[in-house]
Amino acid sequence: MTGNSPIDFYFDFSSPYGYLASERIDGLAGKHGRAVTWRPILLGVIFRVTGQSPLTEQPLRGDYARRDFARSARLYGVRFVLPDPFPIYTLAAARAYYWLGERDPAQAKALAQGVFRAYFGEGRNMSSAQAVIDLAQSLGVDGGELAAALQDPAVKERLKAETQAAIDHGIFGSPTIVVDGEPFWGADRLDHVDRWLETGGW
Amino acid sequence: MTGNSPIDFYFDFSSPYGYLASERIDGLAGKHGRAVTWRPILLGVIFRVTGQSPLTEQPLRGDYARRDFARSARLYGVRFVLPDPFPIYTLAAARAYYWLGERDPAQAKALAQGVFRAYFGEGRNMSSAQAVIDLAQSLGVDGGELAAALQDPAVKERLKAETQAAIDHGIFGSPTIVVDGEPFWGADRLDHVDRWLETGGW
Repeated sequence: MTGNSPIDFYFDFSSPYGYLASERIDGLAGKHGRAVTWRPILLGVIFRVTGQSPLTEQPLRGDYARRDFARSARLYGVRFVLPDPFPIYTLAAARAYYWLGERDPAQAKALAQGVFRAYFGEGRNMSSAQAVIDLAQSLGVDGGELAAALQDPAVKERLKAETQAAIDHGIFGSPTIVVDGEPFWGADRLDHVDRWLETGGW
Repeated sequence: MTGNSPIDFYFDFSSPYGYLASERIDGLAGKHGRAVTWRPILLGVIFRVTGQSPLTEQPLRGDYARRDFARSARLYGVRFVLPDPFPIYTLAAARAYYWLGERDPAQAKALAQGVFRAYFGEGRNMSSAQAVIDLAQSLGVDGGELAAALQDPAVKERLKAETQAAIDHGIFGSPTIVVDGEPFWGADRLDHVDRWLETGGW
């Protein structure tokens, strides 16, 4: 059952648990000789299918979620603040990721990590195109090209297609990690992912 | 921060993750010299506050939940079937638990474990008063007394009060384990509970 194809890492840039997983997933996969394909999606679109809403806006669940985000981050040794505003629209970051990924996958992943760390590590609002462009420029990306790309219908369509493909694969939450077709939802499933990669399943 | 007061274990008898936690929580707490107070509640009442619904009835999430219930059970080495019907009303089991708990706490816990194992280990429908009474009788409980208790307004009121008290404490899901005021939601938080008991928090 084991293989060496990349594992898929679905997330929304506005997902605290997505951020927590993002800090650990490549190292975990690397232990088992696996690469990770990062796949940002729009949870807002998926929530229209599942009827869910952002955790922090839900009665009772919201208070717990805020506590658990911070407690989990401390446990994993990951810097974390709950940003204000939260949640945010993450269209720009996700479009930038896919556009850049066709040119330089490593740079695209660096951008994704940068967006997560700016938003959840430092509390910087990363919803605007300009915030994403500024960050991308600091990584050596041509800001003018990226600005144009963010308005390109093909780039917008790419993100829509990626989100729809995720839904078609049954993805409903962030993060979801898929190993050889087996889905694991939640930053708290990384231990299961680790064991699945080790054993090939149980 | 550490103490030796009992930890609280909130659950609904129709909760698969509650069942998975129930098979591990006493052993885990015992390692740290702690007892566990089991507190069945009615998730249906809480769902009216949170706007949630049973996982298996939710688009996309339902398919994943069924897979994760079974996969988690296999990982923990716990016998598990997804019963039919599922979910079920668990009023009778929860009322029986609190009534018996005032008389013989150890027997009440044995009844609770028996209900969980009958429903999720063997797929036996445990929603009816008769099913609960039959099981209780097999543990030495007087069936006639229990049958009368299940119709007693004070017993009914007790379960309502326990569920309301849980809501007042911010409990929204099953299982939730509370250690010295710190809540942990989910069978997948038992590792955190273990570490919290070990360290007194982080």
